[in-house]
Amino acid sequence: MSKLYVVGIGPGGKENMTFKAVEAIKNSDAVVGYTPYIEYLGDWVDGKEIFSTGMRGEIERCKKAVELLKEGKTTSIVSTGDAGLYGMAGPIMELTNGVDVEVIPGVTAAFSAAAELGSPIMHDYASISLSDLMTPWEVILKRMDKAAEADFVITLYNPRSKGRPDHLEEALKLVSKYRNSETPVGIVRDSGRPGTKVKVTTLGDIDYEEIDMLTVLIIGNSNTYIKNNKIITPRGYNIK
Amino acid sequence: MSKLYVVGIGPGGKENMTFKAVEAIKNSDAVVGYTPYIEYLGDWVDGKEIFSTGMRGEIERCKKAVELLKEGKTTSIVSTGDAGLYGMAGPIMELTNGVDVEVIPGVTAAFSAAAELGSPIMHDYASISLSDLMTPWEVILKRMDKAAEADFVITLYNPRSKGRPDHLEEALKLVSKYRNSETPVGIVRDSGRPGTKVKVTTLGDIDYEEIDMLTVLIIGNSNTYIKNNKIITPRGYNIK
Repeated sequence: MSKLYVVGIGPGGKENMTFKAVEAIKNSDAVVGYTPYIEYLGDWVDGKEIFSTGMRGEIERCKKAVELLKEGKTTSIVSTGDAGLYGMAGPIMELTNGVDVEVIPGVTAAFSAAAELGSPIMHDYASISLSDLMTPWEVILKRMDKAAEADFVITLYNPRSKGRPDHLEEALKLVSKYRNSETPVGIVRDSGRPGTKVKVTTLGDIDYEEIDMLTVLIIGNSNTYIKNNKIITPRGYNIK
Repeated sequence: MSKLYVVGIGPGGKENMTFKAVEAIKNSDAVVGYTPYIEYLGDWVDGKEIFSTGMRGEIERCKKAVELLKEGKTTSIVSTGDAGLYGMAGPIMELTNGVDVEVIPGVTAAFSAAAELGSPIMHDYASISLSDLMTPWEVILKRMDKAAEADFVITLYNPRSKGRPDHLEEALKLVSKYRNSETPVGIVRDSGRPGTKVKVTTLGDIDYEEIDMLTVLIIGNSNTYIKNNKIITPRGYNIK
């Protein structure tokens, strides 16, 4: 029987993919994805039916994947990172009855960025996307505020785009209500890919111009520190 | 030159490991880990020096890994899930100068559990460990409260142990201040391993007796729903 795999391929490049993700792609008749992600897969997709589209073609790709499944083709629809976090698993589950769908988890960009920065997450953390395309800005700000108040490490996806150049600064002002300007911040662009840029800085010292949609930010909690240009959040929680 | 790899091996079993994780282990002279995790690695560790200890031997294992590195042996210290979330990356970064250390990210248990449940995370979420061994209970409760107030999906690690059988219920009471009893909850034991148990239930209907330290809980946000026994958090955020 044909199946629909929703595959998290990790941050990009083959080395952060899991064996299960590769197996799903190899077993598929058709592969659907955002054009650059299909390119990461290289010769694993040789001889397969490919459907790829550009940015913001998410729902079109999901519908196509479901259509291919209905034609009897085992199909993989790929997301970077983990398919179940800001990825394709949700729309696919919404569009199907779930019976023929298998979600295959992957390494999310924040974990890849964290590995490149040292160990900035380690403890309780909150993941927030600053994209307000599908989430009201006030909901996002409330999350920033409460996450900062409760001293979560915070990982930020889609931190800054041309359409909303000042949102990140507005969001980080809320963090500054609770944490001092020396709080370590890691900024990673193109995590896990060739040409990764890794920067260790502090909340008071962020250069907003070097941040875009391909960047992940990790903001430390009140115990996080910098050593040898690596960011470390202690595992145990010391009461100050 | 010898190196120390801190390797996230995913939730357990080879299929959720990344290529990079396997390469690190294959390239190592010595492998250090909690005994059952070493067993997941099977014949990849044949012929290597092995140092394994039981539960709560974390710091002993970290010190041993650093010692092996100093002896000139390329060494992997393994964590299940992602090494940088409640794993070995933190203690290793604290014990070393970071120069010879490479952290290799992995698939965390919450993402593996989410894949088995459908797409319960999808959107902004907070990860909280209920273990109070190294974190004051009042800090944990504050995080539960703020995460629930800001309508994060919540993933819970170490939700319940024999030493604190009633903590989970106390923590979930805080969630009930903000979400109704029909809020979907996914309970997964031994995610990604043979014999995985996956249960879809609601906040009002949790059977606490079936939850232990090997279980991950995922609590939906105010938009999360259940369809065909799968939990779905919509990607877009509808204002109610």
